[in-house]
Formats: sequence, C-alpha cells, structure tokens
Amino acid sequence: MADRTLVLTVAYDGALFAGFARQPGLGTVQGRLESALSTALRRSVVTVGAGRTDAGVHALGQVVSFEGRSGDPEPHSLRRSVDALSGDGISIRGVRWARLGFSARFDAESREYRYRIVQGGVAPMFLKRFAWHVARELDVDSMRAAIPALLGEHDFKSFCVAESAVGKPTIRRLDLIEVVAEEHLGEACLCVRIVGNAFLHSMVRVLVGSLVEVGAGRRGPGWIAEALAATDRGAAGPTAPPHGLVLHEVRYPEGVWL
Amino acid sequence: MADRTLVLTVAYDGALFAGFARQPGLGTVQGRLESALSTALRRSVVTVGAGRTDAGVHALGQVVSFEGRSGDPEPHSLRRSVDALSGDGISIRGVRWARLGFSARFDAESREYRYRIVQGGVAPMFLKRFAWHVARELDVDSMRAAIPALLGEHDFKSFCVAESAVGKPTIRRLDLIEVVAEEHLGEACLCVRIVGNAFLHSMVRVLVGSLVEVGAGRRGPGWIAEALAATDRGAAGPTAPPHGLVLHEVRYPEGVWL
Repeated sequence: MADRTLVLTVAYDGALFAGFARQPGLGTVQGRLESALSTALRRSVVTVGAGRTDAGVHALGQVVSFEGRSGDPEPHSLRRSVDALSGDGISIRGVRWARLGFSARFDAESREYRYRIVQGGVAPMFLKRFAWHVARELDVDSMRAAIPALLGEHDFKSFCVAESAVGKPTIRRLDLIEVVAEEHLGEACLCVRIVGNAFLHSMVRVLVGSLVEVGAGRRGPGWIAEALAATDRGAAGPTAPPHGLVLHEVRYPEGVWL
Repeated sequence: MADRTLVLTVAYDGALFAGFARQPGLGTVQGRLESALSTALRRSVVTVGAGRTDAGVHALGQVVSFEGRSGDPEPHSLRRSVDALSGDGISIRGVRWARLGFSARFDAESREYRYRIVQGGVAPMFLKRFAWHVARELDVDSMRAAIPALLGEHDFKSFCVAESAVGKPTIRRLDLIEVVAEEHLGEACLCVRIVGNAFLHSMVRVLVGSLVEVGAGRRGPGWIAEALAATDRGAAGPTAPPHGLVLHEVRYPEGVWL
C-alpha cells in the first residue's frame, strides 16, 4: 500500500543522455532511474521529474518522486543501492520521504537554472563540457540592463520552442536573473542564474541566447522587452547550446517532508 | 638566427595524454606541441617545459619555451595558429617573448600546483574528471596541523618516486601549502594548493596522499615530520591519483620578458 512519497535528488551529466524524460529506445535519465528503482524495490516504479531537461542539459539538483510503500528500505540505504544501480553519469545525492500525493513537478515552488558562458578568444579547457564558448567579449552591463523587463509574471511565448506552446498556457513567473562572474577550476566564466516558478520548453536557453545577443552588441537592452511583448518565437534570440545549462535546484514548501 | 625566446602558456586535459614529456610512439603534450609549432613555423622546434607532468595530470598554466627567430609571427597570431594546430585537449592561452637564453624550466622561480579532493559518501558528478573522490570525511584541521613541518627547504626523498631519486639532488623548497574549501560547478571540494621552487617526480601527489592519511585519521599530524625525516619513500603515504592534480601556474622574474 502506498503510504508516502519517495523523493530523490539527482545529478547527471547531460552529455550522456537523450534528455531527462523517458523515451522508448533511447538512453534517458528517467528510463535509467526507473529501471534502477524497479530493481532495488522489486516492483515496477513510475516517476515524476521536476524538470524535463533536454538532451545535453546537466542537472545537479533534479528532483524525482514516486509512490513509496511502508516496507521500502530507509532513505539512506535506498540512496546507496539506487546510486550503484543507476550507473555512469547519474548520481543520487539524497533520498527523502514526503507526504502521500506529493509530486516533484506540481509541488515545486521554484526552480533555479544556471547557465555558464566562457567569453573571449581563448576557448575553455576544463569547462569545455559545461560552458558555452562565445568568442567575443560580452558587455555584461547591457545584459544586466535588459533583465528587469523579464522579471515577474509574463507570457513567455517568445522564449520557448514554438511548437511546444501551441494551445498551452505560456505564462510564467521569473523571480531572479543574475549575471555573475565566476571562476571554476581556475577558469573564468559568466554565470546566468535564473529562478522562476516554472519554465517552458527551452525557455532558459532562449533567454540566455537572447541576453547574449544584447551582450554581444547585436541588440540593445531594450530589445528584450520588445521580444517579450511580441509573443512570437521569431522575435527572440537563438537557443543557446544545451551543455552550458544545469538544473541547479528545485525548491518546495517546508511542510511537504515527513 | 635565434634572437629571442618564444614562451607559450599552455592548458591541457591530462586524461587525453601519456604525460607532458615527449616519448616516441606515445601521445604526449610536448610531442603534439612540437609538431604544431613545426608546422606553424616551418622549421623543426624543440621545446622545454616548466613541469614534466605525469600521464593524467592536467595543466592550466604549463609554460613551454623554445628559440624564436626575428622573422617569426607576432605572439598574437602565433597563439591562434598553434592553438588551432594543437588539436583537442590542448589550448594555447598566451604567447610572449623572453630574452634569448630563457628557459621555461630553469628560469622558473616557483610553481603552483592545485589538487582537488571530493570527500564523503556521494561521488562527484561534474568534478569526476578533476577531483579525487575520498569516500570518508577528512579532518581538515589535522591536515593543516601537519603542514608547517613541510614548509621551507628539506630533503623530500620520502615524497617522490624512489627510482627517480637515485643519485639526484632531492632538496626542494616549499613556500606554501593550503587546504581550502572550494565550490566548482556547484560541487563542494577541498583544494590543496602547493607552491614551491621545484618538485620531484610525483612529489605533489605523494604529499597529498600523505596529507589524506592524516585527514582520514589513519596517521596523526606529527607523522608527516617523521616521514620527511626518514628520507625513504616507504615512510610516506600513497601516491594520490593523477586526475585531481593541475599545474596551475609557473612564476618567473619580471625581468625576463621582452
């Protein structure tokens, strides 16, 4: 009898998968997780993920939920067995119990994505698999000037894969966009941190691709507001490549945990 | 006519090479660089590297020098052509001119290595190729307590590959060892920063392997001083794996640059 929800926090190397969401015949994170969970728990397990990341997109804090039963192993030992069974490129960071009926997707209050960019003439070495190399120097002040127009609740139809928006609600709320200078493994990069309640298909990558148009000087900061108002994918910038993107964290109300 | 020295700053992904130093029939960084330089300059080029990193060891700031000629391209354009010719896993970060007779190896005042460790039960994801995963929690205070005994000029015979020390001077000077908490790509790690005038074969990795013995509680902090005094490789700890190590920077006197 299902009496609680089991919740995994999962990291993965997006380069090794055809995306998060289960697809017949393809190597996906969800497919591998469900197979590992079914082996560990000796029953068929169907999971829900907080974010359907595309092929090539990484995660540090993806959250995955499924129905637990009273006889299931303790979270600590389940973490170890599922981590071992998930194989290369997937790491189970933690396992928790939540109340029955909890959904990693629908109970999420906000999601944080981080997108890393290495700018300038010298290509990244250690960050090659985790950052988009943009060969010119970006004007970060212009990028920052474009951000306020995106914050709050808007129709983000311009900033998602056009086909995915047909007949579906495209209003989302962005709480924070920051462009910060970071250094990882000795290499400098820009990190675009984006926090919002939920995201449309490829929305973070189109936002980043559009901000880079501004940073590169091909568009002025005010163009972002125009692109948003157009509610037309053609009005925004290109989709940034997947390998710079990480689903960093998903946040839930405190009350859901057992 | 040689009238100056050309000096490259080079980054590489150690996992892709059988070490820095040229070896017939093996894929080495020096071999690939010399081949790229010979193509770019249309003459045979023999280089000197500041540090002979082992197979698997990375570099962000390796320095490589060779004789330049008055007709050679400007540093800026040579950087671009050699970077393109060096292929995957090698990146030329900069090219400078130094006075005739300069040697990347013998003129170096100090070298800085950084060694990264991910501790605890959860394996690293994005740092997997750049950090040693030590499954237990390390006592960083004990590691720090062991450090002072290593600073200054000592015979480091205990901390190098035994065969490499036969009949050779094994006195070196360590200026700094720091163990600092870092975060890269969202993952926590420890970084051991080691600065010294020069290093014996595998010296950084034996130092780190020995400090981890202390951090893991298998040895007390005072054991490091005993191991040093023994001048015997058998007295020190194991050699840490190569993939956690980066040759971070090599420093030279200001006066050498043209």
